[in-house]
Amino acid sequence: MIVAYQGEPGAFSEEAARSFFGPKAHLLPVQSFKDVFAFAAKHGSHHGVVPIENSVYGSVHQNYDLLLKHKLSIVGEVKLRVQLHLMTLPGVSLKEVRSIYSHPQALGQCEEFLRRLKRVSVVAFYDTAGAAKMIREKSRRDAAAIASARAASAYGLEILRRNVESNHHNYTRFIVLSSKRSNHKVGEKTSLVFAVKNVPGALFKALAVFALREINMLKIESRPLIGRPWEYLFYLDVEGSTADERMQQALDHLGELATLVRILGSYPFGKTIKS
Amino acid sequence: MIVAYQGEPGAFSEEAARSFFGPKAHLLPVQSFKDVFAFAAKHGSHHGVVPIENSVYGSVHQNYDLLLKHKLSIVGEVKLRVQLHLMTLPGVSLKEVRSIYSHPQALGQCEEFLRRLKRVSVVAFYDTAGAAKMIREKSRRDAAAIASARAASAYGLEILRRNVESNHHNYTRFIVLSSKRSNHKVGEKTSLVFAVKNVPGALFKALAVFALREINMLKIESRPLIGRPWEYLFYLDVEGSTADERMQQALDHLGELATLVRILGSYPFGKTIKS
Repeated sequence: MIVAYQGEPGAFSEEAARSFFGPKAHLLPVQSFKDVFAFAAKHGSHHGVVPIENSVYGSVHQNYDLLLKHKLSIVGEVKLRVQLHLMTLPGVSLKEVRSIYSHPQALGQCEEFLRRLKRVSVVAFYDTAGAAKMIREKSRRDAAAIASARAASAYGLEILRRNVESNHHNYTRFIVLSSKRSNHKVGEKTSLVFAVKNVPGALFKALAVFALREINMLKIESRPLIGRPWEYLFYLDVEGSTADERMQQALDHLGELATLVRILGSYPFGKTIKS
Repeated sequence: MIVAYQGEPGAFSEEAARSFFGPKAHLLPVQSFKDVFAFAAKHGSHHGVVPIENSVYGSVHQNYDLLLKHKLSIVGEVKLRVQLHLMTLPGVSLKEVRSIYSHPQALGQCEEFLRRLKRVSVVAFYDTAGAAKMIREKSRRDAAAIASARAASAYGLEILRRNVESNHHNYTRFIVLSSKRSNHKVGEKTSLVFAVKNVPGALFKALAVFALREINMLKIESRPLIGRPWEYLFYLDVEGSTADERMQQALDHLGELATLVRILGSYPFGKTIKS
Protein backbone atom coordinates (compact mmCIF):
# COMPACT_ATOMS: atom_id res chain seq x y z
CA MET A 1 0.00 0.00 0.00
CA ILE A 2 1.26 3.44 -0.95
CA VAL A 3 -0.11 6.67 0.57
CA ALA A 4 0.46 10.02 -1.19
CA TYR A 5 0.58 13.35 0.68
CA GLN A 6 1.45 16.89 -0.37
CA GLY A 7 4.82 18.22 0.84
CA GLU A 8 8.20 16.89 1.90
CA PRO A 9 8.96 14.25 4.54
CA GLY A 10 8.30 15.99 7.87
CA ALA A 11 5.15 17.73 6.56
CA PHE A 12 2.00 17.78 8.74
CA SER A 13 0.22 15.72 6.09
CA GLU A 14 2.91 13.05 6.44
CA GLU A 15 2.34 12.99 10.19
CA ALA A 16 -1.41 12.57 9.67
CA ALA A 17 -0.79 9.77 7.15
CA ARG A 18 1.71 7.99 9.42
CA SER A 19 -0.62 8.14 12.41
CA PHE A 20 -3.47 6.69 10.34
CA PHE A 21 -1.61 3.94 8.46
CA GLY A 22 1.04 2.99 11.04
CA PRO A 23 4.80 2.43 10.76
CA LYS A 24 4.74 -0.05 7.84
CA ALA A 25 2.90 1.97 5.19
CA HIS A 26 4.95 3.39 2.34
CA LEU A 27 4.37 7.18 2.22
CA LEU A 28 4.91 9.12 -1.00
CA PRO A 29 5.51 12.90 -1.00
CA VAL A 30 4.01 14.70 -4.04
CA GLN A 31 3.95 18.36 -5.07
CA SER A 32 0.28 19.38 -5.04
CA PHE A 33 -3.15 18.37 -3.71
CA LYS A 34 -4.12 17.66 -7.33
CA ASP A 35 -1.28 15.11 -7.48
CA VAL A 36 -2.53 13.42 -4.29
CA PHE A 37 -6.01 12.94 -5.80
CA ALA A 38 -4.60 11.76 -9.14
CA PHE A 39 -2.38 9.21 -7.38
CA ALA A 40 -5.14 7.85 -5.14
CA ALA A 41 -7.43 7.50 -8.18
CA LYS A 42 -4.89 5.39 -10.09
CA HIS A 43 -4.94 2.10 -8.24
CA GLY A 44 -7.18 0.40 -5.70
CA SER A 45 -4.41 -0.12 -3.14
CA HIS A 46 -3.24 3.51 -3.36
CA HIS A 47 -4.43 6.11 -0.86
CA GLY A 48 -4.08 9.83 -0.34
CA VAL A 49 -4.19 12.13 2.69
CA VAL A 50 -5.16 15.83 2.41
CA PRO A 51 -6.20 18.59 4.85
CA ILE A 52 -9.91 19.47 4.59
CA GLU A 53 -10.52 21.92 7.44
CA ASN A 54 -8.52 24.12 9.83
CA SER A 55 -9.87 25.59 13.04
CA VAL A 56 -8.40 29.04 12.29
CA TYR A 57 -8.64 29.24 8.50
CA GLY A 58 -11.81 27.25 7.82
CA SER A 59 -12.48 24.70 5.10
CA VAL A 60 -9.93 23.94 2.39
CA HIS A 61 -12.30 24.65 -0.50
CA GLN A 62 -9.75 23.48 -3.07
CA ASN A 63 -9.91 19.94 -1.68
CA TYR A 64 -13.72 19.95 -1.60
CA ASP A 65 -13.58 20.96 -5.28
CA LEU A 66 -11.16 18.10 -6.01
CA LEU A 67 -13.46 15.68 -4.14
CA LEU A 68 -16.25 16.66 -6.54
CA LYS A 69 -14.00 16.20 -9.59
CA HIS A 70 -12.66 12.76 -8.67
CA LYS A 71 -14.54 9.57 -7.88
CA LEU A 72 -12.77 8.92 -4.59
CA SER A 73 -14.20 7.99 -1.19
CA ILE A 74 -13.28 9.33 2.22
CA VAL A 75 -12.33 6.25 4.24
CA GLY A 76 -10.99 7.91 7.39
CA GLU A 77 -9.95 11.11 9.14
CA VAL A 78 -7.21 12.37 11.49
CA LYS A 79 -7.31 15.56 13.57
CA LEU A 80 -3.90 17.11 14.16
CA ARG A 81 -3.03 19.83 16.67
CA VAL A 82 -0.73 22.08 14.61
CA GLN A 83 2.38 23.18 16.51
CA LEU A 84 4.95 25.33 14.75
CA HIS A 85 8.55 25.71 15.93
CA LEU A 86 11.48 27.88 14.86
CA MET A 87 14.45 25.64 14.00
CA THR A 88 18.06 26.05 12.92
CA LEU A 89 21.24 24.05 12.44
CA PRO A 90 22.58 22.94 15.85
CA GLY A 91 24.43 25.68 17.77
CA VAL A 92 23.01 28.63 15.79
CA SER A 93 21.61 31.46 17.94
CA LEU A 94 18.62 33.68 17.12
CA LYS A 95 20.99 36.67 16.67
CA GLU A 96 22.71 34.92 13.74
CA VAL A 97 19.43 34.31 11.87
CA ARG A 98 18.90 36.69 8.92
CA SER A 99 16.13 34.82 7.02
CA ILE A 100 13.21 32.68 8.15
CA TYR A 101 11.70 30.20 5.68
CA SER A 102 8.31 28.48 5.74
CA HIS A 103 5.04 27.88 3.85
CA PRO A 104 2.96 31.07 3.36
CA GLN A 105 0.12 29.77 5.53
CA ALA A 106 2.46 28.78 8.36
CA LEU A 107 4.10 32.23 8.16
CA GLY A 108 0.63 33.77 8.39
CA GLN A 109 -0.04 31.70 11.52
CA CYS A 110 3.15 33.06 13.15
CA GLU A 111 2.58 36.71 12.22
CA GLU A 112 2.75 38.00 15.82
CA PHE A 113 6.06 36.27 16.52
CA LEU A 114 7.58 37.37 13.19
CA ARG A 115 6.57 41.02 13.61
CA ARG A 116 8.61 41.24 16.81
CA LEU A 117 11.85 40.23 15.08
CA LYS A 118 14.07 42.97 13.69
CA ARG A 119 16.36 42.80 10.67
CA VAL A 120 15.14 39.36 9.60
CA SER A 121 13.58 38.68 6.20
CA VAL A 122 10.67 36.27 6.09
CA VAL A 123 10.82 34.08 2.99
CA ALA A 124 7.94 32.02 1.58
CA PHE A 125 8.74 28.41 0.70
CA TYR A 126 6.57 25.77 -0.98
CA ASP A 127 6.41 23.64 2.16
CA THR A 128 7.19 23.83 5.90
CA ALA A 129 9.29 20.66 5.91
CA GLY A 130 10.88 21.69 2.59
CA ALA A 131 12.21 24.80 4.32
CA ALA A 132 13.83 22.67 7.05
CA LYS A 133 15.30 20.36 4.41
CA MET A 134 16.82 23.29 2.46
CA ILE A 135 18.56 24.65 5.58
CA ARG A 136 20.15 21.24 6.19
CA GLU A 137 21.10 20.65 2.54
CA LYS A 138 22.65 24.10 2.06
CA SER A 139 24.17 24.20 5.60
CA ARG A 140 22.59 27.64 6.09
CA ARG A 141 23.78 29.01 9.45
CA ASP A 142 22.15 32.41 8.70
CA ALA A 143 18.65 30.95 8.28
CA ALA A 144 15.84 29.31 10.25
CA ALA A 145 12.72 27.38 9.28
CA ILE A 146 9.26 27.30 10.85
CA ALA A 147 8.02 23.72 10.74
CA SER A 148 6.91 20.72 12.82
CA ALA A 149 8.99 18.92 15.47
CA ARG A 150 8.94 15.98 13.04
CA ALA A 151 10.69 18.11 10.39
CA ALA A 152 13.33 19.18 12.94
CA SER A 153 14.21 15.59 13.70
CA ALA A 154 13.98 14.50 10.03
CA TYR A 155 16.63 17.03 9.01
CA GLY A 156 18.71 17.18 12.23
CA LEU A 157 17.73 20.72 13.19
CA GLU A 158 17.50 22.18 16.68
CA ILE A 159 14.33 23.85 17.95
CA LEU A 160 15.23 27.41 19.00
CA ARG A 161 11.72 28.67 19.93
CA ARG A 162 8.77 26.35 20.54
CA ASN A 163 5.16 27.11 19.55
CA VAL A 164 5.64 30.32 17.62
CA GLU A 165 2.07 30.08 16.22
CA SER A 166 -0.24 32.93 17.34
CA ASN A 167 -3.27 30.76 18.08
CA HIS A 168 -2.65 27.63 20.12
CA HIS A 169 -6.13 26.25 19.39
CA ASN A 170 -4.98 25.36 15.91
CA TYR A 171 -6.28 22.03 14.61
CA THR A 172 -6.28 20.64 11.10
CA ARG A 173 -8.58 17.80 10.05
CA PHE A 174 -7.16 15.49 7.37
CA ILE A 175 -9.17 13.03 5.30
CA VAL A 176 -7.97 9.70 3.91
CA LEU A 177 -8.88 9.07 0.25
CA SER A 178 -9.30 5.81 -1.63
CA SER A 179 -10.62 4.77 -5.04
CA LYS A 180 -12.37 1.86 -3.32
CA ARG A 181 -15.72 2.50 -1.69
CA SER A 182 -15.56 3.11 2.04
CA ASN A 183 -16.38 0.24 4.37
CA HIS A 184 -19.84 1.29 5.46
CA LYS A 185 -19.90 -1.22 8.28
CA VAL A 186 -17.33 0.68 10.31
CA GLY A 187 -18.76 4.11 9.42
CA GLU A 188 -19.55 6.39 12.34
CA LYS A 189 -19.99 9.54 10.27
CA THR A 190 -20.95 10.27 6.67
CA SER A 191 -19.73 13.21 4.58
CA LEU A 192 -21.74 14.49 1.64
CA VAL A 193 -22.12 17.44 -0.70
CA PHE A 194 -25.47 18.57 -2.04
CA ALA A 195 -26.98 21.52 -3.88
CA VAL A 196 -30.47 22.98 -3.66
CA LYS A 197 -32.21 25.75 -5.56
CA ASN A 198 -32.09 29.08 -3.75
CA VAL A 199 -35.79 29.26 -2.85
CA PRO A 200 -37.06 29.95 0.69
CA GLY A 201 -37.14 26.78 2.74
CA ALA A 202 -35.06 24.65 0.34
CA LEU A 203 -32.15 24.13 2.75
CA PHE A 204 -34.54 23.58 5.64
CA LYS A 205 -36.35 20.83 3.74
CA ALA A 206 -33.03 19.24 2.85
CA LEU A 207 -31.94 19.19 6.50
CA ALA A 208 -35.36 17.86 7.52
CA VAL A 209 -34.56 14.53 5.82
CA PHE A 210 -31.97 13.96 8.55
CA ALA A 211 -33.68 15.68 11.48
CA LEU A 212 -36.99 13.83 10.96
CA ARG A 213 -35.01 10.56 11.21
CA GLU A 214 -33.06 11.76 14.27
CA ILE A 215 -29.74 11.76 12.45
CA ASN A 216 -27.40 14.27 14.09
CA MET A 217 -25.59 16.94 12.03
CA LEU A 218 -21.90 17.40 12.82
CA LYS A 219 -20.85 20.05 10.32
CA ILE A 220 -22.59 22.23 7.80
CA GLU A 221 -21.25 24.85 5.46
CA SER A 222 -22.78 26.64 2.50
CA ARG A 223 -20.87 27.86 -0.50
CA PRO A 224 -22.11 29.74 -3.57
CA LEU A 225 -21.88 27.58 -6.71
CA ILE A 226 -19.44 29.31 -9.05
CA GLY A 227 -21.13 30.30 -12.30
CA ARG A 228 -24.63 29.50 -10.98
CA PRO A 229 -25.36 32.53 -8.79
CA TRP A 230 -28.70 31.32 -7.38
CA GLU A 231 -27.58 27.89 -6.32
CA TYR A 232 -25.60 26.86 -3.28
CA LEU A 233 -23.42 23.89 -2.45
CA PHE A 234 -23.64 22.49 1.08
CA TYR A 235 -20.96 20.42 2.75
CA LEU A 236 -22.56 18.26 5.41
CA ASP A 237 -21.22 15.75 7.94
CA VAL A 238 -23.84 13.65 9.72
CA GLU A 239 -23.55 11.00 12.40
CA GLY A 240 -23.96 7.39 11.27
CA SER A 241 -23.12 5.18 8.31
CA THR A 242 -24.66 4.75 4.86
CA ALA A 243 -25.05 1.09 5.94
CA ASP A 244 -27.86 2.18 8.32
CA GLU A 245 -31.34 1.85 6.88
CA ARG A 246 -32.44 5.20 8.30
CA MET A 247 -29.48 6.90 6.64
CA GLN A 248 -30.26 5.25 3.29
CA GLN A 249 -33.83 6.47 3.54
CA ALA A 250 -32.68 9.99 4.44
CA LEU A 251 -30.32 10.05 1.44
CA ASP A 252 -33.06 8.79 -0.91
CA HIS A 253 -35.32 11.51 0.45
CA LEU A 254 -32.56 14.10 -0.08
CA GLY A 255 -32.27 12.92 -3.69
CA GLU A 256 -35.89 13.95 -4.25
CA LEU A 257 -35.20 17.53 -3.11
CA ALA A 258 -31.66 18.35 -4.17
CA THR A 259 -30.28 19.28 -7.59
CA LEU A 260 -27.06 17.36 -6.79
CA VAL A 261 -26.11 14.80 -4.11
CA ARG A 262 -22.66 13.25 -3.78
CA ILE A 263 -21.88 10.87 -0.90
CA LEU A 264 -18.18 11.34 -0.10
CA GLY A 265 -17.89 8.41 2.30
CA SER A 266 -18.75 6.80 5.65
CA TYR A 267 -15.86 6.37 8.07
CA PRO A 268 -14.98 6.12 11.77
CA PHE A 269 -14.42 9.25 13.87
CA GLY A 270 -10.75 10.24 13.74
CA LYS A 271 -8.32 10.40 16.64
CA THR A 272 -6.82 13.74 17.65
CA ILE A 273 -3.01 13.68 17.65
CA LYS A 274 -0.40 16.30 18.55
CA SER A 275 2.20 17.31 16.00
CA MET B 1 -15.82 60.34 9.34
CA ILE B 2 -12.72 58.15 9.56
CA VAL B 3 -12.61 54.55 8.27
CA ALA B 4 -9.87 52.16 9.47
CA TYR B 5 -8.63 49.22 7.40
CA GLN B 6 -5.76 46.76 7.79
CA GLY B 7 -2.77 47.25 5.50
CA GLU B 8 -1.10 50.04 3.55
CA PRO B 9 -2.67 52.43 1.03
CA GLY B 10 -3.35 50.30 -2.06
CA ALA B 11 -4.55 47.31 0.01
CA PHE B 12 -7.69 45.43 -1.07
CA SER B 13 -9.37 46.53 2.17
CA GLU B 14 -8.71 50.15 1.24
CA GLU B 15 -10.37 49.56 -2.13
CA ALA B 16 -13.42 48.03 -0.45
CA ALA B 17 -13.60 50.96 2.00
CA ARG B 18 -13.24 53.56 -0.77
CA SER B 19 -15.93 51.94 -2.89
CA PHE B 20 -18.33 51.87 0.09
CA PHE B 21 -17.68 55.34 1.52
CA GLY B 22 -16.88 57.29 -1.67
CA PRO B 23 -14.09 59.74 -2.52
CA LYS B 24 -14.50 62.11 0.45
CA ALA B 25 -14.10 59.67 3.39
CA HIS B 26 -10.85 59.78 5.32
CA LEU B 27 -9.31 56.27 5.27
CA LEU B 28 -6.86 55.22 7.99
CA PRO B 29 -4.42 52.31 7.46
CA VAL B 30 -3.74 50.29 10.67
CA GLN B 31 -1.55 47.24 11.35
CA SER B 32 -3.97 44.47 12.35
CA PHE B 33 -7.64 43.42 12.26
CA LYS B 34 -7.64 43.89 16.05
CA ASP B 35 -6.66 47.53 15.53
CA VAL B 36 -9.53 48.02 13.04
CA PHE B 37 -12.08 46.75 15.60
CA ALA B 38 -10.54 48.81 18.43
CA PHE B 39 -10.62 51.96 16.29
CA ALA B 40 -14.24 51.47 15.14
CA ALA B 41 -15.31 50.88 18.76
CA LYS B 42 -13.78 54.17 19.97
CA HIS B 43 -16.10 56.77 18.53
CA GLY B 44 -19.57 56.83 16.95
CA SER B 45 -18.42 58.44 13.72
CA HIS B 46 -15.54 55.98 13.25
CA HIS B 47 -15.91 52.92 11.03
CA GLY B 48 -13.85 49.89 10.11
CA VAL B 49 -13.69 47.59 7.07
CA VAL B 50 -12.47 43.97 7.33
CA PRO B 51 -12.61 40.86 5.09
CA ILE B 52 -15.04 38.22 6.42
CA GLU B 53 -15.13 35.54 3.71
CA ASN B 54 -13.14 34.50 0.63
CA SER B 55 -14.43 32.26 -2.12
CA VAL B 56 -11.23 30.16 -2.16
CA TYR B 57 -10.15 30.20 1.50
CA GLY B 58 -13.50 30.32 3.29
CA SER B 59 -14.50 32.40 6.29
CA VAL B 60 -12.03 34.61 8.13
CA HIS B 61 -12.65 33.05 11.55
CA GLN B 62 -10.44 35.61 13.29
CA ASN B 63 -12.84 38.40 12.32
CA TYR B 64 -15.87 36.41 13.44
CA ASP B 65 -14.11 35.97 16.79
CA LEU B 66 -13.43 39.72 16.96
CA LEU B 67 -17.10 40.41 16.14
CA LEU B 68 -18.07 38.36 19.19
CA LYS B 69 -15.57 40.20 21.41
CA HIS B 70 -16.57 43.73 20.41
CA LYS B 71 -19.99 45.40 20.51
CA LEU B 72 -19.93 46.57 16.92
CA SER B 73 -22.61 46.30 14.24
CA ILE B 74 -22.25 45.32 10.61
CA VAL B 75 -23.73 48.25 8.67
CA GLY B 76 -22.77 47.24 5.13
CA GLU B 77 -20.83 44.89 2.86
CA VAL B 78 -18.72 45.01 -0.31
CA LYS B 79 -17.77 42.07 -2.55
CA LEU B 80 -14.43 42.45 -4.29
CA ARG B 81 -13.10 40.37 -7.18
CA VAL B 82 -9.46 39.82 -6.15
CA GLN B 83 -7.00 40.30 -9.02
CA LEU B 84 -3.27 39.96 -8.35
CA HIS B 85 -0.58 41.39 -10.61
CA LEU B 86 3.21 41.16 -10.69
CA MET B 87 4.68 44.69 -10.62
CA THR B 88 8.12 46.30 -10.74
CA LEU B 89 9.76 49.70 -11.11
CA PRO B 90 9.18 51.02 -14.66
CA GLY B 91 11.47 49.45 -17.28
CA VAL B 92 12.50 46.39 -15.22
CA SER B 93 12.18 43.06 -17.09
CA LEU B 94 11.22 39.70 -15.57
CA LYS B 95 14.79 38.43 -16.13
CA GLU B 96 16.16 41.08 -13.74
CA VAL B 97 13.80 40.07 -10.90
CA ARG B 98 15.53 38.06 -8.14
CA SER B 99 12.93 38.39 -5.33
CA ILE B 100 9.14 38.59 -5.30
CA TYR B 101 7.42 40.15 -2.27
CA SER B 102 3.80 39.84 -1.13
CA HIS B 103 1.49 38.85 1.74
CA PRO B 104 1.63 35.10 2.56
CA GLN B 105 -1.99 34.53 1.51
CA ALA B 106 -1.50 36.33 -1.82
CA LEU B 107 1.65 34.25 -2.42
CA GLY B 108 -0.38 31.13 -1.70
CA GLN B 109 -2.97 32.24 -4.28
CA CYS B 110 -0.21 32.58 -6.94
CA GLU B 111 1.52 29.28 -6.20
CA GLU B 112 1.19 27.93 -9.77
CA PHE B 113 2.73 31.06 -11.30
CA LEU B 114 5.54 31.22 -8.72
CA ARG B 115 6.50 27.55 -9.13
CA ARG B 116 7.25 28.12 -12.80
CA LEU B 117 9.86 30.82 -12.07
CA LYS B 118 13.46 29.77 -11.69
CA ARG B 119 16.16 31.38 -9.50
CA VAL B 120 13.71 33.76 -7.84
CA SER B 121 13.18 33.87 -4.08
CA VAL B 122 9.64 34.41 -2.87
CA VAL B 123 9.57 36.65 0.21
CA ALA B 124 6.66 37.04 2.62
CA PHE B 125 5.69 40.60 3.51
CA TYR B 126 3.11 41.87 6.02
CA ASP B 127 0.89 43.31 3.27
CA THR B 128 0.46 43.21 -0.54
CA ALA B 129 0.47 46.99 -0.92
CA GLY B 130 3.30 47.27 1.64
CA ALA B 131 5.45 45.13 -0.68
CA ALA B 132 4.78 47.52 -3.59
CA LYS B 133 5.57 50.50 -1.35
CA MET B 134 8.89 48.98 -0.22
CA ILE B 135 10.04 48.43 -3.84
CA ARG B 136 9.36 52.11 -4.63
CA GLU B 137 10.93 53.44 -1.41
CA LYS B 138 14.09 51.35 -1.75
CA SER B 139 14.27 51.71 -5.57
CA ARG B 140 14.66 47.92 -5.83
CA ARG B 141 15.29 47.08 -9.50
CA ASP B 142 15.97 43.40 -8.58
CA ALA B 143 12.55 42.86 -6.97
CA ALA B 144 8.84 42.62 -7.83
CA ALA B 145 5.67 42.75 -5.77
CA ILE B 146 2.39 40.87 -6.16
CA ALA B 147 -0.44 43.28 -5.36
CA SER B 148 -3.52 45.08 -6.74
CA ALA B 149 -3.63 47.42 -9.73
CA ARG B 150 -4.43 50.13 -7.19
CA ALA B 151 -1.12 49.49 -5.39
CA ALA B 152 0.78 49.69 -8.72
CA SER B 153 -0.64 53.14 -9.41
CA ALA B 154 -0.26 54.29 -5.77
CA TYR B 155 3.50 53.60 -5.86
CA GLY B 156 4.22 54.25 -9.54
CA LEU B 157 4.99 50.63 -10.44
CA GLU B 158 4.48 48.95 -13.81
CA ILE B 159 2.43 45.75 -14.16
CA LEU B 160 4.68 43.10 -15.73
CA ARG B 161 2.24 40.14 -15.62
CA ARG B 162 -1.50 40.52 -15.10
CA ASN B 163 -3.69 38.12 -13.10
CA VAL B 164 -1.04 35.80 -11.70
CA GLU B 165 -3.58 34.31 -9.24
CA SER B 166 -4.28 30.58 -9.83
CA ASN B 167 -8.05 30.80 -9.40
CA HIS B 168 -9.78 33.60 -11.25
CA HIS B 169 -13.05 33.03 -9.35
CA ASN B 170 -11.53 34.72 -6.33
CA TYR B 171 -13.92 36.99 -4.41
CA THR B 172 -13.55 38.51 -0.96
CA ARG B 173 -16.53 39.82 0.97
CA PHE B 174 -15.75 42.75 3.28
CA ILE B 175 -18.00 44.01 6.08
CA VAL B 176 -18.34 47.59 7.32
CA LEU B 177 -18.27 48.00 11.11
CA SER B 178 -19.70 50.74 13.31
CA SER B 179 -20.24 51.25 17.04
CA LYS B 180 -23.69 52.65 16.22
CA ARG B 181 -26.55 50.24 15.66
CA SER B 182 -27.25 49.44 12.04
CA ASN B 183 -30.14 51.24 10.34
CA HIS B 184 -32.70 48.45 10.31
CA LYS B 185 -34.92 50.30 7.88
CA VAL B 186 -32.50 49.81 4.98
CA GLY B 187 -31.58 46.25 5.98
CA GLU B 188 -31.94 43.62 3.25
CA LYS B 189 -29.99 40.91 5.07
CA THR B 190 -29.26 40.14 8.72
CA SER B 191 -26.11 38.46 10.06
CA LEU B 192 -26.13 36.62 13.37
CA VAL B 193 -24.17 34.13 15.45
CA PHE B 194 -25.83 31.55 17.66
CA ALA B 195 -24.93 28.43 19.62
CA VAL B 196 -27.02 25.35 20.38
CA LYS B 197 -26.37 22.27 22.47
CA ASN B 198 -25.09 19.34 20.41
CA VAL B 199 -28.21 17.19 20.71
CA PRO B 200 -29.93 15.62 17.69
CA GLY B 201 -32.31 18.07 16.05
CA ALA B 202 -31.04 21.17 17.88
CA LEU B 203 -29.74 22.91 14.74
CA PHE B 204 -32.81 21.86 12.80
CA LYS B 205 -35.10 23.43 15.38
CA ALA B 206 -33.00 26.60 15.35
CA LEU B 207 -33.31 26.87 11.56
CA ALA B 208 -37.03 26.13 11.77
CA VAL B 209 -37.61 29.52 13.42
CA PHE B 210 -36.68 31.10 10.08
CA ALA B 211 -38.07 28.48 7.69
CA LEU B 212 -41.49 28.39 9.38
CA ARG B 213 -41.71 32.15 8.81
CA GLU B 214 -40.49 31.87 5.20
CA ILE B 215 -37.28 33.77 5.89
CA ASN B 216 -34.62 32.71 3.37
CA MET B 217 -31.17 31.57 4.52
CA LEU B 218 -28.22 33.01 2.57
CA LYS B 219 -25.22 31.55 4.38
CA ILE B 220 -24.68 29.02 7.14
CA GLU B 221 -21.52 27.72 8.69
CA SER B 222 -20.88 25.66 11.82
CA ARG B 223 -17.79 25.92 13.95
CA PRO B 224 -16.85 23.97 17.09
CA LEU B 225 -16.83 26.23 20.18
CA ILE B 226 -13.25 26.27 21.47
CA GLY B 227 -13.08 24.89 24.99
CA ARG B 228 -16.67 23.57 24.90
CA PRO B 229 -16.32 20.40 22.84
CA TRP B 230 -20.04 19.56 22.63
CA GLU B 231 -21.30 22.94 21.56
CA TYR B 232 -21.21 24.55 18.14
CA LEU B 233 -21.31 28.14 16.95
CA PHE B 234 -23.29 28.88 13.80
CA TYR B 235 -22.77 31.87 11.57
CA LEU B 236 -25.99 32.62 9.73
CA ASP B 237 -27.03 35.23 7.13
CA VAL B 238 -30.75 35.49 6.44
CA GLU B 239 -32.73 37.64 4.05
CA GLY B 240 -34.59 40.60 5.58
CA SER B 241 -34.16 43.18 8.31
CA THR B 242 -34.54 43.08 12.09
CA ALA B 243 -37.08 45.88 11.51
CA ASP B 244 -39.49 43.28 10.04
CA GLU B 245 -41.99 41.88 12.51
CA ARG B 246 -41.55 38.31 11.21
CA MET B 247 -37.79 38.57 11.72
CA GLN B 248 -38.24 39.88 15.27
CA GLN B 249 -40.52 36.96 16.05
CA ALA B 250 -38.05 34.51 14.53
CA LEU B 251 -35.21 35.96 16.63
CA ASP B 252 -37.32 35.82 19.82
CA HIS B 253 -38.12 32.20 18.99
CA LEU B 254 -34.40 31.48 18.41
CA GLY B 255 -33.67 32.99 21.84
CA GLU B 256 -35.85 30.27 23.41
CA LEU B 257 -33.78 27.48 21.81
CA ALA B 258 -30.20 28.73 21.63
CA THR B 259 -27.57 28.98 24.36
CA LEU B 260 -26.26 32.21 22.76
CA VAL B 261 -27.65 34.61 20.14
CA ARG B 262 -25.83 37.70 18.89
CA ILE B 263 -27.33 39.86 16.13
CA LEU B 264 -24.41 41.30 14.18
CA GLY B 265 -26.44 43.72 12.05
CA SER B 266 -29.00 44.31 9.30
CA TYR B 267 -27.67 45.96 6.15
CA PRO B 268 -28.25 46.29 2.39
CA PHE B 269 -26.82 43.72 -0.04
CA GLY B 270 -23.34 44.79 -1.16
CA LYS B 271 -22.24 45.64 -4.67
CA THR B 272 -19.60 43.50 -6.38
CA ILE B 273 -16.60 45.51 -7.56
CA LYS B 274 -13.45 44.55 -9.45
CA SER B 275 -10.04 45.26 -7.92
